Amino acid sequence: MAGLRNTIPEKTVERLSEYRRTLLSCHKQGITHIFSHVLAGIHGITAVQVRRDLMLIGFSSDTKKGYDVKVLIEFINDILDGGGVMNIGVIGMGHLGQAITKYFNGRGLKLRITAAFDVDPAKTGTEIDGIPCYEMSEFEDVVANNDIGIVIVSSPASAASQLVLPIINAGIKGVLNFTSAPLNFPQGIVVENYDITTILEKVAYFVREGEEER
Amino acid sequence: MAGLRNTIPEKTVERLSEYRRTLLSCHKQGITHIFSHVLAGIHGITAVQVRRDLMLIGFSSDTKKGYDVKVLIEFINDILDGGGVMNIGVIGMGHLGQAITKYFNGRGLKLRITAAFDVDPAKTGTEIDGIPCYEMSEFEDVVANNDIGIVIVSSPASAASQLVLPIINAGIKGVLNFTSAPLNFPQGIVVENYDITTILEKVAYFVREGEEER
Repeated sequence: MAGLRNTIPEKTVERLSEYRRTLLSCHKQGITHIFSHVLAGIHGITAVQVRRDLMLIGFSSDTKKGYDVKVLIEFINDILDGGGVMNIGVIGMGHLGQAITKYFNGRGLKLRITAAFDVDPAKTGTEIDGIPCYEMSEFEDVVANNDIGIVIVSSPASAASQLVLPIINAGIKGVLNFTSAPLNFPQGIVVENYDITTILEKVAYFVREGEEER
Repeated sequence: MAGLRNTIPEKTVERLSEYRRTLLSCHKQGITHIFSHVLAGIHGITAVQVRRDLMLIGFSSDTKKGYDVKVLIEFINDILDGGGVMNIGVIGMGHLGQAITKYFNGRGLKLRITAAFDVDPAKTGTEIDGIPCYEMSEFEDVVANNDIGIVIVSSPASAASQLVLPIINAGIKGVLNFTSAPLNFPQGIVVENYDITTILEKVAYFVREGEEER
């Protein structure tokens, strides 16, 4: 993640997103209050970390009963969803693209996948899980007409570099790149390269490290 | 990632994995040498960072022509794949599980998905993309017989917490959790919680931050 002066650190933003999901699940179960150490335990971190994160966003209504779940959810909503709904496009509707689309569909998030793009004529011009699938030649128009701010790149890695220019030209502001090809964009476009192989190789490395220590 | 004293920092391990993929692609194209600043440019980081990472693993054969691509690949192979092939199981063969399996199949990595698990009787007892799919009741036996060290959890979030005990009991050493439910394991088990919603919410947050600054 590069190119932005951020007021809240990246890791805190990630944890806020994670806390919110836990809080929503608590709320569903009728839990009204939660202590920082309980929230910390669920996420495998310290209570100090939780309190520090919430202090950073100016939330300080810790009571003897713990945090008010509903109030904290709304507080995090304001921080994370400040600008209302964000429309998202998915480039590449193979298995991964479809998995991501299905994962987000109907979850009631403020992030909405509203358009998909592919090169396969069997897919373009149709709807996949309720999402219209377009050709890449239509990309710029569809982005403008649908007010799409973020794209998820789930194309084959070999096709990813050709997407950089269309993405810049269409005025996209954020890219979540799932391919193994690192993508570079000018300052002002938020990029997260999120390759599964890297994460799995990291887990494998630390598993082996642990075995050597025994 | 917790529970291990690590000699190489997490972020360096991630970057080594990323450098290697770039180097392999260079090697395929017949490129024999690469400068640190070129490698850095591809990955959107500084040449100092690249040199620091390679110094950390003891690689210092920078010449006037840059790094020898083939030698560096083999050097990183030794670090990341030290223990040979690592067998991996996938729990949950929905769209995401199948996408991950297809993604890894036939990529010639030292990480091999060798077994899948699901609760759907239409899937268990069959092969999906060449990977045998078992019931969860067979989990412990299959892990032992196939020498599986790592599992990928791509089940529905609601089912994830029930998987913790079987995973511990089977002696699994590393978990890559794709569900939105955070999973806690005892020390000694490497866990990476890797939720797509969190990453996407993070990208959206920094996109909005950037817009406010303008």
